Amino acid sequence: MTERIAIIDLGSNSARLIVMHVYEKGAYNLVYNQKESVRLSEGMNATLHLQPEAIGRALSTLKIFAHMCQLFQVDKIIGVATAAVRNAKNGDQFIALAERETGILLDVISGELEAELGFIGAMNTIDLTDGLLFDLGGGSTELTLVKNRQIKQSISLPFGAVTLTERFGLQDKVNDAKIAELQAFIQAQLASLPWLKRIFAPLVGIGGTARNIAKIDQRLKNYPFAKVHNYRLGPLSFDQILELIDKTSLAQRRKLPGLSSERADIIIAGVNIVKGLLDITQAPQLVISGCGVREGLFLQYYQAKYQQPPIMKNILEHSTHNVLLAHEGDPNHAYHIAALAETLFDGWQDHLALRSGDKKLLKVAALLHDIGITINYYDHPRHSSYLIENARLFGLTHREQILAAVIAGWHNGTSAKYYRNRIYSEFLDEGDWHIARKLAMLLAIAECLDVTQMGLVKTVQALIKTKAAVLKLYLSEPAPIERQALQKCDKWIKKDLGLALEIEECFI
Amino acid sequence: MTERIAIIDLGSNSARLIVMHVYEKGAYNLVYNQKESVRLSEGMNATLHLQPEAIGRALSTLKIFAHMCQLFQVDKIIGVATAAVRNAKNGDQFIALAERETGILLDVISGELEAELGFIGAMNTIDLTDGLLFDLGGGSTELTLVKNRQIKQSISLPFGAVTLTERFGLQDKVNDAKIAELQAFIQAQLASLPWLKRIFAPLVGIGGTARNIAKIDQRLKNYPFAKVHNYRLGPLSFDQILELIDKTSLAQRRKLPGLSSERADIIIAGVNIVKGLLDITQAPQLVISGCGVREGLFLQYYQAKYQQPPIMKNILEHSTHNVLLAHEGDPNHAYHIAALAETLFDGWQDHLALRSGDKKLLKVAALLHDIGITINYYDHPRHSSYLIENARLFGLTHREQILAAVIAGWHNGTSAKYYRNRIYSEFLDEGDWHIARKLAMLLAIAECLDVTQMGLVKTVQALIKTKAAVLKLYLSEPAPIERQALQKCDKWIKKDLGLALEIEECFI
Repeated sequence: MTERIAIIDLGSNSARLIVMHVYEKGAYNLVYNQKESVRLSEGMNATLHLQPEAIGRALSTLKIFAHMCQLFQVDKIIGVATAAVRNAKNGDQFIALAERETGILLDVISGELEAELGFIGAMNTIDLTDGLLFDLGGGSTELTLVKNRQIKQSISLPFGAVTLTERFGLQDKVNDAKIAELQAFIQAQLASLPWLKRIFAPLVGIGGTARNIAKIDQRLKNYPFAKVHNYRLGPLSFDQILELIDKTSLAQRRKLPGLSSERADIIIAGVNIVKGLLDITQAPQLVISGCGVREGLFLQYYQAKYQQPPIMKNILEHSTHNVLLAHEGDPNHAYHIAALAETLFDGWQDHLALRSGDKKLLKVAALLHDIGITINYYDHPRHSSYLIENARLFGLTHREQILAAVIAGWHNGTSAKYYRNRIYSEFLDEGDWHIARKLAMLLAIAECLDVTQMGLVKTVQALIKTKAAVLKLYLSEPAPIERQALQKCDKWIKKDLGLALEIEECFI
Repeated sequence: MTERIAIIDLGSNSARLIVMHVYEKGAYNLVYNQKESVRLSEGMNATLHLQPEAIGRALSTLKIFAHMCQLFQVDKIIGVATAAVRNAKNGDQFIALAERETGILLDVISGELEAELGFIGAMNTIDLTDGLLFDLGGGSTELTLVKNRQIKQSISLPFGAVTLTERFGLQDKVNDAKIAELQAFIQAQLASLPWLKRIFAPLVGIGGTARNIAKIDQRLKNYPFAKVHNYRLGPLSFDQILELIDKTSLAQRRKLPGLSSERADIIIAGVNIVKGLLDITQAPQLVISGCGVREGLFLQYYQAKYQQPPIMKNILEHSTHNVLLAHEGDPNHAYHIAALAETLFDGWQDHLALRSGDKKLLKVAALLHDIGITINYYDHPRHSSYLIENARLFGLTHREQILAAVIAGWHNGTSAKYYRNRIYSEFLDEGDWHIARKLAMLLAIAECLDVTQMGLVKTVQALIKTKAAVLKLYLSEPAPIERQALQKCDKWIKKDLGLALEIEECFI
């Protein structure tokens, strides 16, 4: 049964709605995303009361969200409110009012739960074993220390980009003294948490500030891939952005490429919190997660529905399977080809000078090599390549994702076309193209070994002998069409393996 | 209810299988395509008997097809056999044997029906009012004169690429005398059909010979689009290919870029038949149709299922709707946006110096502007653009299809990214980019007018006054979010309309 789940997240700065569609076979996909800058915490610092104007903005946004949920015929709405409502003395009244006026019941979640949901969202979409997660919102900042993919420590600090902006008056241009004052405050707050000190592991950032840092850096570097999730930058790049932001006026920041103009007034507070975190943790890299509380809420629901733990064992396998099903791929054929290709990899890896990490690229490409058929059967390897490049695959770096796309695109033979693709050439160097070629060859052979899709070749063994590369086919009955198809790969094998191919048949 | 239909077409030269998937809402898509070179008519010239070896090849191919049908869980197999079986004295025995051995019952169709099915396949996928259709197979050539989208005359000539190759011995290199002899034969055959003479309308070619002519021409011209259907070339380009083929040996032809090596031995006969047709008709252009008997069989079945006539009224609307549904687009939103955009077009067409033919591009882009969401919500305009570029849309030239892709890709604002796309730059010149910009602006305005997807703006009227472009919005209730969204387009409108935008609201 298909299902549509809406997730609503009312923060101190923005309100977000996402709609996830769950297909019959369990695959899911984001079908709608809306963000409104509500500034619910505006003017709250002094009295700890949500202000009437802010409440008015929140209600009209929630009304639109309710309408969108109706339009998308969602089956279930999961709504949460965070710091602003949590801290407001009139929070309960607001929640009751919102339910009366919009029909949406928001769950006011604790800082601890907020941290956990961000953890679920990020850990299921970023390949991370150890690190510090931060979710920098308008009115709070959740910090989660991750060790071995588990929460080791976590805290919700009661300040965020909006609250610090108001407290220190950082909307427009600020002088050095003000920045020093701000940094001293942040340092003092963080210094009280000994587990933050010198973790030497990546800092993973969730939230608008983190996403905007990525976008600014991408514009500065002319980054060719329109993707923020899993984008990485080093402390030097970050410091350049920090300086750019600390020294400019509001009007200048509004025009800063990559920075959302709605965020220009609160970005000084935001980046300085990140600066404090980078300093105390000595993190070697800042990783941006586009997924946080909203994805955490959805995945918590989804995993529970399928009786699975909230943190997946293997996010790459999960997301690849999800993409395969979402594009109506045939899992039987896909997994058989992947198994054959992986066996070839194991047998010839040394001879081909491949790294063990290359195997996962081959597997992704093998599982998804045919998904382009949903676009157009003709030229479908190229369409598979486009889909893989742009799919919501998790657990690969951007470069790895593009490599997997090239490999799948070549499953019927290499083509110079991909060399001309601007994005690919920015990511891949000569060595990468060679690796892609070799892995694509293994995929092409695997594809030939099941060209009739009859599964006649049960399994293979790939060996290297002095004068030949040997392929032992384990068959239940003769497979003449598969053998004939293999001949197409002869030249390719000769070139990349440097050996002639010998076939042996073993009937089982 | 979803349905899978397999179409099998056993010709004199090749056997083809396609599997069409019909989705719940009636959209359909090709999910499998297999072609085997069977040469069923081989050696048949003398005795008019299908030869044992040819029968053996046909049976093993049909067995594979039967297996594929099972694998794809097809609900219905529509199988036909053409010239070779039709003309063979042992045709009935072969059909009975094939059914016994493979379970597939082939319908031996008449030349007249073959011509009609090709007509249905081509007319529903190529925008053509008048012209001569030819379906050049291995053992027969169907000619259909089309006037006003109807069959005016049709005939099935009892020779094709395989039969003439055998009759004149054209497999390898041939001398000028042999070519002259061949051409004299073809001319004599065609001369007996007075309705072929000087039709001055396009010649539309179906079948492997026609497709290979397109592919060779595309390679010669370094054509950047991997698409054969609706490819067009003039008589001069054709003559260049003819000469290339007439003067080369079999070994040389096997290496000719674009020519399938399996067809290298019968291509001389094939291109000379086309030459004869071009000469007698004086057709100004040769158009290649990738769709023929197989698509005709499917569409005949599909249209009957929905109580529709076999020839569609508007192939562009039909195929656009099909692509919209296949990518799970929301028809309500899509058609509302398209209607708004078309009204804007009507009001401002003169001022924007647009041609009336540009309107259909705007409509396609408007209907399909959101389909990229199935790939990834983020950056979906770019994905919509890719899908439109590669979709099975019929009734647009290749250039028009790429223009529609650019327009849809810009529905949230223009981006220089598309300028850098190699394919686009090969097709579009400065003038095209300007037209795309203007049409994208109309689409962007339409999108703003229903940004909440609530249909608050029922309809619009677009006027040009001396000092302003006026947009009258006909509303049932205030639409503040739509009005706010429109402000984003202010600069764009100012630039491309050269006038400021004035909004008037009329409550209805």
